[in-house]
Amino acid sequence: AEVRLPFWSRAPSCWSSGFNVPPSAQFVARPVGVCSMMKLPMQASAAGLDVAFVGVPLDTGTSNRPGARFGPRQIRAESAMLRRYNSSTGAAPFDSLRVADIGDVNSYQDIVASGCVPLTLGKDRTNVATVSGAGTVPWDWCTWMLTPTPETGLWGRKIYHGSTFRRCVDEGLLDCGRVVQIGIRGSSYEPNPYKYCREQGFRVVPAEECWMKSLEPLMREVRAQLGDKPMYISFDIDGAGPRLRPGHRHPGDSRAHTCAGEGGSAAIPTFLFFPCCAPFKGGCSTSTALEIIRGCKGLNIVGCDLVEVAPMYDVSGNTALLGANLLFEMLCVLPGVKTM
Amino acid sequence: AEVRLPFWSRAPSCWSSGFNVPPSAQFVARPVGVCSMMKLPMQASAAGLDVAFVGVPLDTGTSNRPGARFGPRQIRAESAMLRRYNSSTGAAPFDSLRVADIGDVNSYQDIVASGCVPLTLGKDRTNVATVSGAGTVPWDWCTWMLTPTPETGLWGRKIYHGSTFRRCVDEGLLDCGRVVQIGIRGSSYEPNPYKYCREQGFRVVPAEECWMKSLEPLMREVRAQLGDKPMYISFDIDGAGPRLRPGHRHPGDSRAHTCAGEGGSAAIPTFLFFPCCAPFKGGCSTSTALEIIRGCKGLNIVGCDLVEVAPMYDVSGNTALLGANLLFEMLCVLPGVKTM
Amino acid sequence: AEVRLPFWSRAPSCWSSGFNVPPSAQFVARPVGVCSMMKLPMQASAAGLDVAFVGVPLDTGTSNRPGARFGPRQIRAESAMLRRYNSSTGAAPFDSLRVADIGDVNSYQDIVASGCVPLTLGKDRTNVATVSGAGTVPWDWCTWMLTPTPETGLWGRKIYHGSTFRRCVDEGLLDCGRVVQIGIRGSSYEPNPYKYCREQGFRVVPAEECWMKSLEPLMREVRAQLGDKPMYISFDIDGAGPRLRPGHRHPGDSRAHTCAGEGGSAAIPTFLFFPCCAPFKGGCSTSTALEIIRGCKGLNIVGCDLVEVAPMYDVSGNTALLGANLLFEMLCVLPGVKTM
Amino acid sequence: AEVRLPFWSRAPSCWSSGFNVPPSAQFVARPVGVCSMMKLPMQASAAGLDVAFVGVPLDTGTSNRPGARFGPRQIRAESAMLRRYNSSTGAAPFDSLRVADIGDVNSYQDIVASGCVPLTLGKDRTNVATVSGAGTVPWDWCTWMLTPTPETGLWGRKIYHGSTFRRCVDEGLLDCGRVVQIGIRGSSYEPNPYKYCREQGFRVVPAEECWMKSLEPLMREVRAQLGDKPMYISFDIDGAGPRLRPGHRHPGDSRAHTCAGEGGSAAIPTFLFFPCCAPFKGGCSTSTALEIIRGCKGLNIVGCDLVEVAPMYDVSGNTALLGANLLFEMLCVLPGVKTM
Amino acid sequence: AEVRLPFWSRAPSCWSSGFNVPPSAQFVARPVGVCSMMKLPMQASAAGLDVAFVGVPLDTGTSNRPGARFGPRQIRAESAMLRRYNSSTGAAPFDSLRVADIGDVNSYQDIVASGCVPLTLGKDRTNVATVSGAGTVPWDWCTWMLTPTPETGLWGRKIYHGSTFRRCVDEGLLDCGRVVQIGIRGSSYEPNPYKYCREQGFRVVPAEECWMKSLEPLMREVRAQLGDKPMYISFDIDGAGPRLRPGHRHPGDSRAHTCAGEGGSAAIPTFLFFPCCAPFKGGCSTSTALEIIRGCKGLNIVGCDLVEVAPMYDVSGNTALLGANLLFEMLCVLPGVKTM
Amino acid sequence: AEVRLPFWSRAPSCWSSGFNVPPSAQFVARPVGVCSMMKLPMQASAAGLDVAFVGVPLDTGTSNRPGARFGPRQIRAESAMLRRYNSSTGAAPFDSLRVADIGDVNSYQDIVASGCVPLTLGKDRTNVATVSGAGTVPWDWCTWMLTPTPETGLWGRKIYHGSTFRRCVDEGLLDCGRVVQIGIRGSSYEPNPYKYCREQGFRVVPAEECWMKSLEPLMREVRAQLGDKPMYISFDIDGAGPRLRPGHRHPGDSRAHTCAGEGGSAAIPTFLFFPCCAPFKGGCSTSTALEIIRGCKGLNIVGCDLVEVAPMYDVSGNTALLGANLLFEMLCVLPGVKTM
Repeated sequence: AEVRLPFWSRAPSCWSSGFNVPPSAQFVARPVGVCSMMKLPMQASAAGLDVAFVGVPLDTGTSNRPGARFGPRQIRAESAMLRRYNSSTGAAPFDSLRVADIGDVNSYQDIVASGCVPLTLGKDRTNVATVSGAGTVPWDWCTWMLTPTPETGLWGRKIYHGSTFRRCVDEGLLDCGRVVQIGIRGSSYEPNPYKYCREQGFRVVPAEECWMKSLEPLMREVRAQLGDKPMYISFDIDGAGPRLRPGHRHPGDSRAHTCAGEGGSAAIPTFLFFPCCAPFKGGCSTSTALEIIRGCKGLNIVGCDLVEVAPMYDVSGNTALLGANLLFEMLCVLPGVKTM
Repeated sequence: AEVRLPFWSRAPSCWSSGFNVPPSAQFVARPVGVCSMMKLPMQASAAGLDVAFVGVPLDTGTSNRPGARFGPRQIRAESAMLRRYNSSTGAAPFDSLRVADIGDVNSYQDIVASGCVPLTLGKDRTNVATVSGAGTVPWDWCTWMLTPTPETGLWGRKIYHGSTFRRCVDEGLLDCGRVVQIGIRGSSYEPNPYKYCREQGFRVVPAEECWMKSLEPLMREVRAQLGDKPMYISFDIDGAGPRLRPGHRHPGDSRAHTCAGEGGSAAIPTFLFFPCCAPFKGGCSTSTALEIIRGCKGLNIVGCDLVEVAPMYDVSGNTALLGANLLFEMLCVLPGVKTM
Repeated sequence: AEVRLPFWSRAPSCWSSGFNVPPSAQFVARPVGVCSMMKLPMQASAAGLDVAFVGVPLDTGTSNRPGARFGPRQIRAESAMLRRYNSSTGAAPFDSLRVADIGDVNSYQDIVASGCVPLTLGKDRTNVATVSGAGTVPWDWCTWMLTPTPETGLWGRKIYHGSTFRRCVDEGLLDCGRVVQIGIRGSSYEPNPYKYCREQGFRVVPAEECWMKSLEPLMREVRAQLGDKPMYISFDIDGAGPRLRPGHRHPGDSRAHTCAGEGGSAAIPTFLFFPCCAPFKGGCSTSTALEIIRGCKGLNIVGCDLVEVAPMYDVSGNTALLGANLLFEMLCVLPGVKTM
Repeated sequence: AEVRLPFWSRAPSCWSSGFNVPPSAQFVARPVGVCSMMKLPMQASAAGLDVAFVGVPLDTGTSNRPGARFGPRQIRAESAMLRRYNSSTGAAPFDSLRVADIGDVNSYQDIVASGCVPLTLGKDRTNVATVSGAGTVPWDWCTWMLTPTPETGLWGRKIYHGSTFRRCVDEGLLDCGRVVQIGIRGSSYEPNPYKYCREQGFRVVPAEECWMKSLEPLMREVRAQLGDKPMYISFDIDGAGPRLRPGHRHPGDSRAHTCAGEGGSAAIPTFLFFPCCAPFKGGCSTSTALEIIRGCKGLNIVGCDLVEVAPMYDVSGNTALLGANLLFEMLCVLPGVKTM
Repeated sequence: AEVRLPFWSRAPSCWSSGFNVPPSAQFVARPVGVCSMMKLPMQASAAGLDVAFVGVPLDTGTSNRPGARFGPRQIRAESAMLRRYNSSTGAAPFDSLRVADIGDVNSYQDIVASGCVPLTLGKDRTNVATVSGAGTVPWDWCTWMLTPTPETGLWGRKIYHGSTFRRCVDEGLLDCGRVVQIGIRGSSYEPNPYKYCREQGFRVVPAEECWMKSLEPLMREVRAQLGDKPMYISFDIDGAGPRLRPGHRHPGDSRAHTCAGEGGSAAIPTFLFFPCCAPFKGGCSTSTALEIIRGCKGLNIVGCDLVEVAPMYDVSGNTALLGANLLFEMLCVLPGVKTM
Repeated sequence: AEVRLPFWSRAPSCWSSGFNVPPSAQFVARPVGVCSMMKLPMQASAAGLDVAFVGVPLDTGTSNRPGARFGPRQIRAESAMLRRYNSSTGAAPFDSLRVADIGDVNSYQDIVASGCVPLTLGKDRTNVATVSGAGTVPWDWCTWMLTPTPETGLWGRKIYHGSTFRRCVDEGLLDCGRVVQIGIRGSSYEPNPYKYCREQGFRVVPAEECWMKSLEPLMREVRAQLGDKPMYISFDIDGAGPRLRPGHRHPGDSRAHTCAGEGGSAAIPTFLFFPCCAPFKGGCSTSTALEIIRGCKGLNIVGCDLVEVAPMYDVSGNTALLGANLLFEMLCVLPGVKTM
């Protein structure tokens, strides 16, 4: 059931010793071919994989600028530049793990059940939830998701674009003492918007604490805090502009989070969410983003996502290109990735 | 070896009675999935197909604005809007022919040898040549193609971006009395740029003769002239702006051609090329383009291409969307397509 | 309760003799001021008005490219160029009718109840419905509208982006023998996509019948057919690219319609919908659009809308500018508008 | 004092037999070199020339969207595609006339005094005036031009962006019975905006009379009307969006004019102005524009301009490319241009 | 005379306890409504306000890229994302001050006379001057402003785009020992362009001194220097590209200034101007900008402006979005703003 | 043979005391005139110059996004903002050196032979090589450059877009112990992509070592290492997106290099190459770029280039504007430039 794109027939056998590898530009020119993530083979399911790239072309929960539904398409297109090794860290993910693109999401539960780590690209975060054998998978939420139309309003309903993590808390899906939120910023409806989060036990690191310095010390603390229990990375690239922040009745959510959760009695994975890195809005720089992701090396990552790439607001394609690179960086810090 | 994209598993069996059909948006939302042409299945070769969509991401012969190398990628993305039937003509190509996307070109000779009609998307026309069992296939030309760099110059070399059809004449690949060029326009290096073409026997229809009127009468004449021998459609959408026109030593080529060729003793197919339809440059309108393509119904079409989609110059995506629609229209006039 | 923008204080009294008039650039420079439609005064309700401009910033039903939610904002901005008279037709709407901008929709029922003609700008057409004292107003539909997410699908639900007019038929809101659809085009899921419409009694005029000719003869026929009963104009500018066309289970809807309805026993107004006029997709030209709207002069128009302006896909602003002009043209053909 | 750009040293002597010729792409690749108009040599004055291209990078009179100041720069860049002959009409301007680019305007009077025909590119029309030995040259007007700021207002002053031709009438610079305005459109401040023009004797041809038909009959009438007295072509491409139309106190001006003037006792040249051809606003199509310009062949043209190219609103560059082509077409209809 | 936009009727009474507050997205969706600044109510004058947002859609003094005239419109549109509290600083401006949008400038003197602090958006800085009961208000300057046309030149005239602060010095409007300029950069006509400024007593902080470090120490010094006398913040976002820098005859001006002025005998307010923060030109980063503005907390701010947002050069809207955020930050540091 | 553009006649004599100087905006408004680099005079050769700006409009070696062929045109256009002095460093290049624009490259050997320092703008780096009396000049390489077409492949050929410096090593053109590469980043085909470079003796400084700190200490070390032997600066602005990095058979090349070479026995100049500074991809910031260039003051620079400006991917023009500024900064650190 593995599907290799037609151009794969050109790659020499040395490229495919049991693992999938992005084909070298020696064999496949950059603009060639139907765009799977990093030109990897496609599979209809996560069966047999260690890691699966999966798209979620969904932006129904976006309250201001829509368009993230085209994020996965554009990230796949720009990922044509990615190569086999991480020259900065020496990580060799494709020598270590079996990776493929499994298309856009059919059933997240099946992915999780397969034992595969999902790397999710380009949705809004309406549906981010637990990624776990025990927990509810995000896309079950779709069925009761509500859209913020002018007439119906958003409020009064429990589930909307900005309420994801509040709902996770409500449902006991998070190990709140291991949730870390990095890079929070922006105006708010509440005078103290972090109060709720901190009461739950989240560590909240505002954007101001990320300016003009290395985050390596912070990440050492994060690693110590999270330990070896499962955790999840959610990264908000915010190419679509600032998103809806939670209203005063739902202060538990915020634009950027680093959450580590092990709720209830089940083996709920830990969450870790990162802030947007678009430089013009007081967020963190790209190098900060890289430091955060690379700083997760050694953690027990069970899933990752990158959200809020909306291609039509960046005609250069650079936001999607950055998204593709950040997903590669996430891949490089997964457990089991060897360093050369 | 046929490859159905993951989302195909969602389509009900009624969609796949021996033929491939673009999946309905009932089953696959527009933004979902890795972008094959019209979301059709992919194959590694043309084997077993009646018609193959094939990309040629190539623009090395472009003398002014490059970028057509990304044409196939963008046409595939925008083709997500296409559906099963042509509501204007009643054509039902997917009920009549087995169609797939075979990725970007590996070997054009293999396509032709398979007996399949190629519909080629998004290259520049450096390499358009004969499509025939007997003739030279276009991409063999790649090996001796030269790039118009400032220093080396373009001239003095036989093969370049604007010389395709002149070379076809030189090599006897065209049945010159059956070549029709529609929509020629622009400034030229020669006082009489159509002289060479007409001396060969081409019918040259300048853009001025296409303005503000129906081309149905013209197409009746074209059908009579071309008869039932093989012919080929090459359509220049010219999204990249006006291309290099031939210098005074190569007057046989021009921006837009309708050529019908049966050169030498072999069964060389006939060529038919259409003009660009971008409205702002004195070319033909979109409705004119549709009349020309629809006017080919009944001809013995053995191949088609659409060239010069360069996405970065049209951030709206509309040129690629038009390209996708024109390729669908070409599909609808192929021999054997039933009308409902 | 009428609200004049601050710059109105500069306009001399001669401009405001009981009617609202777009301020001359003599008094208010083009870029000045908060953007109401045509710089007209704003009111919180339609009370006392003959005509109200009202925005519906809504695109939740869009299946491919979202963004029409920003259409009203951009149309208002570009409407700064509009002036008092129609130099082509001599129409003097502001000397004839009391017109204002009432902001974005709060309650469509209130508008209709006020006796005011709504001119609606920039939504998608998910929610277009009857405009009548007796009929259901469109925005009541919002409460049970469903969003086409990948997982939940669109089908199986009765109401979605492409089903508006099918639902109107189902509910008996249309006088089907007076519905006219002009400019239908595109591929379809059905071999005969117009069959349902024609069975209901709609007149369907495909785009091909609008090419390269004046539509004045057609509009004479339309006026004769519609008579003096109420009718409604819905115009699809399709700036967002081709929209979802109806699936095979919902053939009653199509992209562009001219419907005249007087369903059931109540005084349901007649509908008249026009096709998109973006030239690059085989639709009608701008001049065709103007001929259609101007050809409605004399009809008993009770409401108008212009849909599918999605500004982010046209960075020039020209689609919104065209939208503003077409809304002005609709205003000029309303009953009671004097000609100078 | 003639200045040949460095790349001219590459062109063989056969190209330069007393006349300047756009260098062939055989010798100078399209993207090469500092951009003079059509890669022609530059001169510091019009001395010795029959025709001079001259830029006026000026948009201070623009009331809505500024940016035409960059029109000459962009038109020059896009003119790199132009070649020696007009393949549609056979015109051979560079075999007939000595043409050069004289940079941006220093003194228009000097140009006129040299006996050279100016082809003016890319300004707004604030300063268009008479081009004559006897008349006032446009750029003297600069010294008393006023800018439409919000505070100072535009009115009460005699000279502004929309008043050019009204002022020409006031000063007796026009032979009003020979002024022709083609393609007038848009909303107006006056119920009868053409009344003033027609009272002066102008022929006013609204845009509606140009739709969907050949303008060859019109141009035959225009040629008969204008006779062999001098005339001037002013063409509004309107890439910047609709411009300020005249207020009610200045009805003599309008967006697009064809004026033929011989005012007073002096040999004031005739004016002929053409409408914008951007297709999306109800103006004329590109083919209409070409018919109008080509229809001027045989007239005694003493000057031409192309106004309102504002590059930042058309990131594709196509408006500037069209502008370059239209200026080439104007060149091709000048008196003395041979047809091959 | 206060004008609440129609959508305000939806906001519950708790939002409007004497103060104006940006409506929550609970009540008004982001894309809804005519765009006032932060969706605040509009007033025709500054009467009764503590703070007024006022636009100046003016770019006549721009020597290179025009377009800032559309800055206020775009800043208002993007300000729809702003909320009630500053989550970074805890500032609660809407719980402390009465704020409204008073449209675009009618009379700056009236604003100042009302005792209200103006926050000015989106002009070029041609007209920035003193904001004081005693001083000349900026827009009186409009009447003698000159436009840099090619022919008339800019020099020889006293007032132009780059001379604002030089003129302020000449007229004794500045307390030069309290003027601080932060972030100066770029090439210059003078070998020592800061000489004049420093001779007047300005503190000049070049951009290089702002790189890669916190500006909190600098701002402590600035606060000590400025003391409790009135001061004014002028912030150049420079979205339009580098502006004209002063010529050798006008060295007193420069692109970015922080001026504190108390000229002559009158209570002239102090000026403080900040540099552009577009990251790609060697200016300061966004975080630096935020540090500067936040570092003004405690100063006696009597007015603020943000200049040089030219939307057409940033199709993403991000520059305007940043501008809206910076104006919010200025609001948050005004005297009397409580911290929660 | 020096060519002064027409507008130079307006500059007073004081500007031209033996040296060329960018004309002040006092005499030539920003948008005026045919665009030479910094509006400097043009010459057909480098004769008599100390420094020549020369364009190389070439992108045939680009494997992903083409378009750098238009880099020189756009850099020249945006360079209209540059002025005479460097206000940050006090450098006065135009008081020290004779500088002109010599158009696009005809013969690089002639430039070098003239003793002039070339500052090269806007090509891809396919052809960068030695700049020396003894070495091979880059554009001789053009004649054997190969284009990376999909079919012919790139590999198996010795010369391609990513192999420049590997070939320099092979040919002994570099003094490898004096080559410094700053800012290397991105994924790679090799687990240890810097191994080859370091084996040759290059100093490789990855991007991570440039984050969030001043590079002044690094540049002190670089200056000590390079000494007073000739060196060359090559700067990759990477506006076109990440370029092809070397394959495993060609590890000697990488995206960004600082190479100092004195190969073999001849006086081969030293190379110094800098990294891209586009902030969104983990590269260095603009301020870092400025620190590197300014840190070269005192070195024996014999040539400079700036590569990879591809204007169509940045419609704001800011990348080209940055490129123009960086070339000005390079000019300011050339030997012999006085500081005021």
